[in-house]
Amino acid sequence: QDSEMRAAAKARLDQLALPHWALGDLMDLAIELAGMTRSMSPSFKRKAVVTMAGDHGVVAEGVSKFPQEVTPQMVANFVNGGAGINALARQVGAEVLVVDMGVNSDLSALSAAGKIIDKKVGPGTNNIARGPAMSIAAARRAVEAGIEVAQSLREYDLLGTGDMGIGNTTPSSAIAAVLTGRPVEEVTGRGTGLNDEQYRRKINVLEQILQVNRPDPSNGLEVLAAIGGFEIGGIAGLIIGAAAQRQPVLVDGLISTAGALIAYRIEPFVRDYIICAHRSVEPGHKYMQEMLGWPRPLLDLNLRLGEGTGAALAMNIVEAARAVLVDIATFAEAAVAQADK
Amino acid sequence: QDSEMRAAAKARLDQLALPHWALGDLMDLAIELAGMTRSMSPSFKRKAVVTMAGDHGVVAEGVSKFPQEVTPQMVANFVNGGAGINALARQVGAEVLVVDMGVNSDLSALSAAGKIIDKKVGPGTNNIARGPAMSIAAARRAVEAGIEVAQSLREYDLLGTGDMGIGNTTPSSAIAAVLTGRPVEEVTGRGTGLNDEQYRRKINVLEQILQVNRPDPSNGLEVLAAIGGFEIGGIAGLIIGAAAQRQPVLVDGLISTAGALIAYRIEPFVRDYIICAHRSVEPGHKYMQEMLGWPRPLLDLNLRLGEGTGAALAMNIVEAARAVLVDIATFAEAAVAQADK
Repeated sequence: QDSEMRAAAKARLDQLALPHWALGDLMDLAIELAGMTRSMSPSFKRKAVVTMAGDHGVVAEGVSKFPQEVTPQMVANFVNGGAGINALARQVGAEVLVVDMGVNSDLSALSAAGKIIDKKVGPGTNNIARGPAMSIAAARRAVEAGIEVAQSLREYDLLGTGDMGIGNTTPSSAIAAVLTGRPVEEVTGRGTGLNDEQYRRKINVLEQILQVNRPDPSNGLEVLAAIGGFEIGGIAGLIIGAAAQRQPVLVDGLISTAGALIAYRIEPFVRDYIICAHRSVEPGHKYMQEMLGWPRPLLDLNLRLGEGTGAALAMNIVEAARAVLVDIATFAEAAVAQADK
Repeated sequence: QDSEMRAAAKARLDQLALPHWALGDLMDLAIELAGMTRSMSPSFKRKAVVTMAGDHGVVAEGVSKFPQEVTPQMVANFVNGGAGINALARQVGAEVLVVDMGVNSDLSALSAAGKIIDKKVGPGTNNIARGPAMSIAAARRAVEAGIEVAQSLREYDLLGTGDMGIGNTTPSSAIAAVLTGRPVEEVTGRGTGLNDEQYRRKINVLEQILQVNRPDPSNGLEVLAAIGGFEIGGIAGLIIGAAAQRQPVLVDGLISTAGALIAYRIEPFVRDYIICAHRSVEPGHKYMQEMLGWPRPLLDLNLRLGEGTGAALAMNIVEAARAVLVDIATFAEAAVAQADK
């Protein structure tokens, strides 16, 4: 970030005709936006949510309520504009870009038609309860694919991350456990809605995943290869690419934040361009966001959908923070008396 | 609210192609909106924030950092479009309507020019540390004026409340103490930014206010007359009028919520049309919102400005909840497999 622009933004916000810092988190965010964009009058006209899709071999362990065929079905739903992310992106004027990072289904017709971006690394990961998710080479390809997607979006002012992949809360919770160092029970939730017995099974599977795979927590690529997912690697790459281009990127829920932590391990500077959009219902999310420097994300609305829905929703808050920076008069401009005591 | 429309909304939301209720609070809000508007496809195109302004005799006790002249200066700032509420209302496509409920300044030129709505009940309230704020007749006039403003806004789809009045956190905290039954220290904050000594003085003034005035907590009009403000009465009336017209009304921060509690005491049915926009930094706000059935307001962004800024910001969330209701496909519509376990 640009520290001079941050200072200039703070100096202006300090002078707005309102009790000091009375717009709270919006003013904090406005400083971030000025620092990221190197501008006192940033524009967020061109917005996109990038929804990365991939499948997960670990579904063989019964960790999700939904069958794997739902991943490509939801990709089709995204393309047809009927999903949650489509509705919430439309509401805020953002595009939805869908990337096939590793769906276990032939989506070549959709990519040939230009409906999705084809970056498929493989037909889903291996079962991480039995061994590593993917090779180091595949992990690198996934991250590089995400960087390439970011490079193709250089003209956008604001990006959001999103995910689709049946079973992907399991690798995300595993990443949370490894990178935050917290026990599995503290970072594992009920995903799409597991009952008590299914939840206990998921905890057991996660314990097994961490016994079978023991990646070095300081090596982001190794963690991704051992217990990650193709879409998680793509999200990590998208964030690295966006940060390299100095684009603010709204990070969505549990899976996106797992990708953000991988990105942070690979390139710590990415934290300067990350905005944590919302607090997921998933219990690990809190600790992951704290690592990224966001103990209080922008929204807390009991969301647990993913797809980028929280990122899209939070684009409204980014637009509001922009309005605070550029569109409110100072005491002097408005001829309003300042606090006198 | 219309219970059949609520049930219809819930039935549709239950079938959306996403894990059950995965859009959390947005889905709860969508049910409220369907019930309030009696529609499965509500529209919120015409939006307005009504900012009610009034002055307070209690500023003579030194309860605010800002001089009373700031109230008319901020009214001028609203009219000129330079205030926080103007910026945030513009961002969400809402109009700002300013009402003079009782500013201690001659604003007739602005009302004659059609820039503000003149409903002035008097030139500020009496000092409530020494006696009642106003007569019962004046309290009734203030509430009726708010109802008249609502009646003039019948064509709007969504209203927000707002306030301006130097010193008005003091009557609002007094109302919070009387109506929630909690001690003054639990419901009193630092308003526009008091230091420790100023804060202790405010607590002492509030203790004195509650000793001098002992209104019957079950009588909303009596509470308003004893310890309220003209703009607080206007906000109460606006909410009563909006609810009578079945219009959803976003209630802003501490002062607006004091108005909402007065409205609720006068006409309990208003709760059906109230949406609590955000959680203020002021500590009493939580207890007041709980009384209104909103233990978790939509936003929590450390705002403490008033003016209607939180209400304007939350209009984005209302629009998003509308999008969830009308713009997401069901499992059947999207041909997506449901949870199978």
